[in-house]
Amino acid sequence: MLSEMRVTAQSPQETDSAMENIVTEKKAEESHRQDSADLLIFIMLLTLTILTIWLFKHRRFRFLHETGLAMIYGLIVGVILRYGVHVPRDVSNVTMSCHVNASPATLLVNVSNRFYEYTLKGEIRGDDVQDNEMLRKVTFDPEVFFNILLPPIIFHAGYSLKRRHFFRNMGSILAYAFMGTVVSCFFIGLLMYGCVVLMKYLQQLDGEFFFTDCLFFGAIVSATDPVTVLAIFNELQVDVDLYALLFGESVLNDAVALVLSSSIVAYQPEGDNSHTFEVMAMLKSFGVFLGVFSGSFALGVVTGVVTALISFFTKLRDFQLLETALFFLMSWSTFLLAEACGFTGVVAVLFCGITQAHYTFNNLSPESQDRTKQLFELLNFLAENFIFSYMGLTLFTFHSHVFNPMFIVGAFIAVFLGRAANIYPLSFLLNLGRRNKIRSNFQHMMMFAGLRGAMTFALAIRDTATYARQMMFSTTLLIVFFTVWVCGGGTTQMLSCQRIRVGVDSDQDNSVSVAEISRRSTKQESAWLFRIWYNFDHNYLKPILTHSGPPLTATLPPCCGPLARFLTSPQAFENEGPLKDDDSDLILTDGEINLSYGDITVSTDATGAHSAFPSAGGAGAATSDDLDKELAYGDHELVMRGTRLVLPMDDSEPSITELQPHIRM
Amino acid sequence: MLSEMRVTAQSPQETDSAMENIVTEKKAEESHRQDSADLLIFIMLLTLTILTIWLFKHRRFRFLHETGLAMIYGLIVGVILRYGVHVPRDVSNVTMSCHVNASPATLLVNVSNRFYEYTLKGEIRGDDVQDNEMLRKVTFDPEVFFNILLPPIIFHAGYSLKRRHFFRNMGSILAYAFMGTVVSCFFIGLLMYGCVVLMKYLQQLDGEFFFTDCLFFGAIVSATDPVTVLAIFNELQVDVDLYALLFGESVLNDAVALVLSSSIVAYQPEGDNSHTFEVMAMLKSFGVFLGVFSGSFALGVVTGVVTALISFFTKLRDFQLLETALFFLMSWSTFLLAEACGFTGVVAVLFCGITQAHYTFNNLSPESQDRTKQLFELLNFLAENFIFSYMGLTLFTFHSHVFNPMFIVGAFIAVFLGRAANIYPLSFLLNLGRRNKIRSNFQHMMMFAGLRGAMTFALAIRDTATYARQMMFSTTLLIVFFTVWVCGGGTTQMLSCQRIRVGVDSDQDNSVSVAEISRRSTKQESAWLFRIWYNFDHNYLKPILTHSGPPLTATLPPCCGPLARFLTSPQAFENEGPLKDDDSDLILTDGEINLSYGDITVSTDATGAHSAFPSAGGAGAATSDDLDKELAYGDHELVMRGTRLVLPMDDSEPSITELQPHIRM
Repeated sequence: MLSEMRVTAQSPQETDSAMENIVTEKKAEESHRQDSADLLIFIMLLTLTILTIWLFKHRRFRFLHETGLAMIYGLIVGVILRYGVHVPRDVSNVTMSCHVNASPATLLVNVSNRFYEYTLKGEIRGDDVQDNEMLRKVTFDPEVFFNILLPPIIFHAGYSLKRRHFFRNMGSILAYAFMGTVVSCFFIGLLMYGCVVLMKYLQQLDGEFFFTDCLFFGAIVSATDPVTVLAIFNELQVDVDLYALLFGESVLNDAVALVLSSSIVAYQPEGDNSHTFEVMAMLKSFGVFLGVFSGSFALGVVTGVVTALISFFTKLRDFQLLETALFFLMSWSTFLLAEACGFTGVVAVLFCGITQAHYTFNNLSPESQDRTKQLFELLNFLAENFIFSYMGLTLFTFHSHVFNPMFIVGAFIAVFLGRAANIYPLSFLLNLGRRNKIRSNFQHMMMFAGLRGAMTFALAIRDTATYARQMMFSTTLLIVFFTVWVCGGGTTQMLSCQRIRVGVDSDQDNSVSVAEISRRSTKQESAWLFRIWYNFDHNYLKPILTHSGPPLTATLPPCCGPLARFLTSPQAFENEGPLKDDDSDLILTDGEINLSYGDITVSTDATGAHSAFPSAGGAGAATSDDLDKELAYGDHELVMRGTRLVLPMDDSEPSITELQPHIRM
Repeated sequence: MLSEMRVTAQSPQETDSAMENIVTEKKAEESHRQDSADLLIFIMLLTLTILTIWLFKHRRFRFLHETGLAMIYGLIVGVILRYGVHVPRDVSNVTMSCHVNASPATLLVNVSNRFYEYTLKGEIRGDDVQDNEMLRKVTFDPEVFFNILLPPIIFHAGYSLKRRHFFRNMGSILAYAFMGTVVSCFFIGLLMYGCVVLMKYLQQLDGEFFFTDCLFFGAIVSATDPVTVLAIFNELQVDVDLYALLFGESVLNDAVALVLSSSIVAYQPEGDNSHTFEVMAMLKSFGVFLGVFSGSFALGVVTGVVTALISFFTKLRDFQLLETALFFLMSWSTFLLAEACGFTGVVAVLFCGITQAHYTFNNLSPESQDRTKQLFELLNFLAENFIFSYMGLTLFTFHSHVFNPMFIVGAFIAVFLGRAANIYPLSFLLNLGRRNKIRSNFQHMMMFAGLRGAMTFALAIRDTATYARQMMFSTTLLIVFFTVWVCGGGTTQMLSCQRIRVGVDSDQDNSVSVAEISRRSTKQESAWLFRIWYNFDHNYLKPILTHSGPPLTATLPPCCGPLARFLTSPQAFENEGPLKDDDSDLILTDGEINLSYGDITVSTDATGAHSAFPSAGGAGAATSDDLDKELAYGDHELVMRGTRLVLPMDDSEPSITELQPHIRM
């Protein structure tokens, strides 16, 4: 391979330019055909996955999620490409090798006085150069994941996060996402460092492996993936608080892990000895973390708010196509803007999605609400399955795997312990402050549901230049496979084993009057963070940014009257009576809202009155509280999977049946 | 610019690899940020276009379509980039220049013994190298149009073509699309050759311009664009036969022009003198045309049929997300498959779209029908406006425009005459055979509506290597601008001036029983081609491929009984009585279908009985026939634009009012 022909400084020869043109064109055409064929492999893989997963759903097999299946098909195709097909590397394509003393992004090559422009694709290591052209062809530039595949996935996660229980559990979710991820990252990093030191001692290590590498590994495997578990939760209609905790945590910790990993990479002490501890570099890394995170957050929120304002002040809703297109473009521009500013596009897109769901969504016409949801649902589905099938493929086609048994065993233990060190202590601390305790079976479920998925993979494949990174990548791949297949596949069993309520149909309960429910559910509201936020959001942000919510004239102090009247839309005045807000049925009753107009301080404290919480999921005591939760369930959620399996769970079914007369009352 | 540093054959030096890595990474990051910013320009342009066009629609300005507006914004940004911003070309990026004796697709560059892979971007001509980095950055690879932007546009056109009047006018549409495009291509080619000879004589020509170039120009400007005119037709609800003729023609002639142009490029006589006439080369070109066209056609139809079969034999409709995803992937795979096989993806995608609309659409769940329509509508909208704003931009940012006044004037005249030579003689010939004549005001309208758009532009920009091609590109750009702004903007006036009926709301007429209408409309069916096709399609293809249509057991001869029972779905048996087919209300009554079961020969000939056709659009005579046409209108059509303008047209309005009592009867 790589036979060098040092053709240097030769005088330009005039050849038949027409003939050469034709040859170049033919070559480009051939290359384009090859690219199309390669992409076709993935499309076919996805088609196959869809058909099989349909069969599984149709026959109600539930042990394998579509992402797990996509990985299996990817594996099979990987094996075929690796051992079945052998396209030798086209020597004529790479024989040219010229010596320059730098590697610019663009290279002008002088061929017989014709200039050709080449763009830098990346570094090829001596041992990397593959002799199988096919394998090289199906290897994507890792940046594809961050620029094309992850943004729709993360946006969709943010866009479908708009749920009462997310905001109600906001404090806990933020704690899990930020503190939990950091704890998990450092815990895993330390354990792995121990493992690496031991390996060095046992001479199991063939290259350098620094502490920052261990921390980086900790960061990337701390990003949990909600996909598989939440798909099953959705189907089984699991307890909504658990759903909110898990979903919220997984969505936000992707963002945290991403920024954390880039801060760790940014840790570069001065001088030659680049792997010692240095306070300044550490502080700089911390600054990078804060700066990038808050910058991306701000950008995402700002574009979301701008979109909300545009849809608020224009009557774009009369033209659904324009509305949907604008929504799509604004959301995409968030990503580009963040990347252009040097922030993290994926993080910005997440917060943009949350803002769009919370504000812009209310201004959209019903058709556009459906359209945007369905559009991002489709993009999410395609991107996700593409990534997972690529994961399967890459186990065999990646050129420089380093599988080290000791490192792998160490990593599995560290990941397990890291998740435990995240969930249990944090839950204990949170339970001290929470009225609605996170029960121990919820904790076990959260522990079990810590799958690793697309984000972990994308972070691991982003840089596979050094020995340490290659070992990490191979190990990460195995961790993803294991968690998706084993933990993902065992979700149903785990739910049943932990006696978590499933099969609660929110439609059944809709006959109870909303006001009744809201009144009772309000009593449970104990999160002060949530209350402050809710009052501010409801009284000021919603009226300014959306057509829902009370008119500003009612919520602003009288001195701001003219401003309030200017900013209030005619629709909002109509809302003065009963609220038409999408969220109104979720959070507070009209009466309570009227009481809290104009004061942000938490006036109605619902403590004390209602503290009898079931501690172990007993059916009798749980009834009225659980009912509240279930009612809010499913309003904005994307119902993607049509079938339902009612598991034979002794404690949940009777309780619902018992409740029904009471509900219908 | 282009300061060469011939750094050749230097011995590899070991530099600080860590530092170099950082520099490379920084460079890649910088380049990525720049790319994001460039893409952001286009997103912002599209956003601006959407907001302005909303304002126009809101205020009911109708003189400028969104594509025309996108071009104007593109022009403005182009001027700013050209004269306002000046980012000097980053010299360090291009200083490296190495001499090799070929231009392979991949180049390995040895920098201090590290190998970097570069991919060929394209040839840069000495005079092309721009000193403004910004202009270079906003210039896309022309293949982007054919691989990313055109496929959704063309697919959408095909997918929305499923209309009764398309099939009823199939013969005429095919004649316009095939014969018309070929006539137009050669006519324009000959005129332009005359122009070029004259220019050579007057020494106005600075480079070579061959007859094949003229023919190529003829081919690319023969592709008419339906967008602008049809959007207005849609809004104004213009006569459906005219709509079908124009839409069908524009959609199909894009495909014909595309294949025609590639056949002309494929014309390469043997030997040195490559621009003489040679029968063999000509025949080869003709063979290429037939082969590529029929190959792409077959591929498109086959994947469409496969999708229909998959959706027929699975119950995928229970899972709309899977269904939509499969539909999208299969349609995309058509494109990739065609490209991988060396056919034309865009053409394959067109016929795939038509097949999907005709068969698969009937098997989809209602939700997926909406989703797929909306998805491709959105993609079409974004891609189209992107292309048109890029067109505006490129007038100022393209680096080697050749504006030759004489060529431009010649081209405008040739395009005008070419369109006339296409429409009028063909209409005359077609009218000899047509029962439902194409009236002269329709002919004028078709003449006027021959806008040039996305396909013409994409074909022109695909290859701008030679002087002739550059001149063609610049001229084409002007033709597109002129036709979109002037002809597009004048559509409403032209309609009113030609006294073509508008403002007919299909909803108003729905109160008449379908059977009544079908019976009457059947009498009009005179196109034998349509009849044969319809019978075959309805009796065999629809039952095999879709859940609609009569059961096969009723349509196949008795000897095929077992096969028919095997292929017939349970749903189809339920259809045995009144048809539930989506098309059933469009074409024939149940009674007639029962009569024609089992015989393909045209048994019910409706000639003679009904020949009183209005010759000049008189309101009284046109009533009952026109009514039939309007009824079928709008069933599968994508209603994109919400507003309606009822023009003060004396003859159309009263006729509807007159009709209404009769209809409601």
